[in-house]
Amino acid sequence: MSLVRVHNFAISLDGFGTGEGLTFDAPFGHAGHRLHEWYFATRFWHSKIDESGGSSGVDDVFAQQIDLGFGAEIMGRGKFGPQTGPWLDLGTEEEWRGWWGPNPPFHTPVFVLTHHERPSIEMEGGTVFHFVDATPGEALELARAAAGDLDVRLGGGPTTIREFLAADLVDVMHIVQVPILLGRGVRLWDGLEGLDSRYDIESVASPSGVTHLTLTRR
Amino acid sequence: MSLVRVHNFAISLDGFGTGEGLTFDAPFGHAGHRLHEWYFATRFWHSKIDESGGSSGVDDVFAQQIDLGFGAEIMGRGKFGPQTGPWLDLGTEEEWRGWWGPNPPFHTPVFVLTHHERPSIEMEGGTVFHFVDATPGEALELARAAAGDLDVRLGGGPTTIREFLAADLVDVMHIVQVPILLGRGVRLWDGLEGLDSRYDIESVASPSGVTHLTLTRR
Repeated sequence: MSLVRVHNFAISLDGFGTGEGLTFDAPFGHAGHRLHEWYFATRFWHSKIDESGGSSGVDDVFAQQIDLGFGAEIMGRGKFGPQTGPWLDLGTEEEWRGWWGPNPPFHTPVFVLTHHERPSIEMEGGTVFHFVDATPGEALELARAAAGDLDVRLGGGPTTIREFLAADLVDVMHIVQVPILLGRGVRLWDGLEGLDSRYDIESVASPSGVTHLTLTRR
Repeated sequence: MSLVRVHNFAISLDGFGTGEGLTFDAPFGHAGHRLHEWYFATRFWHSKIDESGGSSGVDDVFAQQIDLGFGAEIMGRGKFGPQTGPWLDLGTEEEWRGWWGPNPPFHTPVFVLTHHERPSIEMEGGTVFHFVDATPGEALELARAAAGDLDVRLGGGPTTIREFLAADLVDVMHIVQVPILLGRGVRLWDGLEGLDSRYDIESVASPSGVTHLTLTRR
């Protein structure tokens, strides 16, 4: 059975998975790059941008998991772009096609949850963005069908992950707690009282200062 | 210079330092004992209740710090008891004298922050409860005078610690993050954006499942 997995999802010490004020220039709002500095320091990330070097310790081995064994991704609309409401740029030269350039790192179908459906976008390298107005369960059914025997990556943001947790649809979750206090933004853990009864939770502190939390469904 | 230190202050994964619904029977509300099971498993706690056994690893060495080098404590009223508003039991047989019995574990002056002052209470073993309507800075001045060369323990709860952090009066803080989700209660980290710029933050995962966070003021 294919699993639903979350990887490399970073939160601040006060629990925010993204900051406030998302724009085209600031996909994580006032958080800037601070939630992801641990990631940019890894050998895994360096190799992604065709650079040598980078750390190869616990941060790196966790980071790698995001590329292993996935046949589809589900993401919230906020991960695809900062727009809300109807898509106003469809068919224009400025049509938004995500943050990732012509060849996004997914290389699979990606299901973007939105109340405003639109035609799919086929990118280079195998990534196809589908836009679906669906419940978590319905979206997962689509993603599972697309993924075949492979797993489904739940890509975030915090609201989307929280909805899938509430619906008990997440098998494995890797959270990276970064020792910063954002003070505002969107919290990951809101409204999930008792979630720990459904998961084995492991904690590993990295010498880099972050803490890796893994939740494995019992 | 004597330091202001917080030790063994436990929070849930979602950041709550106490649950909802504090009563005489449930000092941490619906959290029950779940925030402190790591503590009850230590050799330090076992020795406090005159039992042998208990763990002697990282949880235990952190736990011990709470007894080392203090000449006074400051606590919020919610740590002293669940009552709010005027003290209605003064002079009665049922007068509340804290959760800790006739010989509380403080053995120093303890300054209880409250808007409702009342006469001090002298207990066995050197603990004297003073009730003061004071700002964090004013309370600290009283506690420092009482502590002499020794440190001042900031005993909680979450609201009191947050106020002292906001006023930049905390030198050392040891937080224990417990892998449970309480969902509701009082959060420790609210409204402290950027706190990390004032502290070196260290994280140590314990085999028991909790994570010890230490914040040391730069």
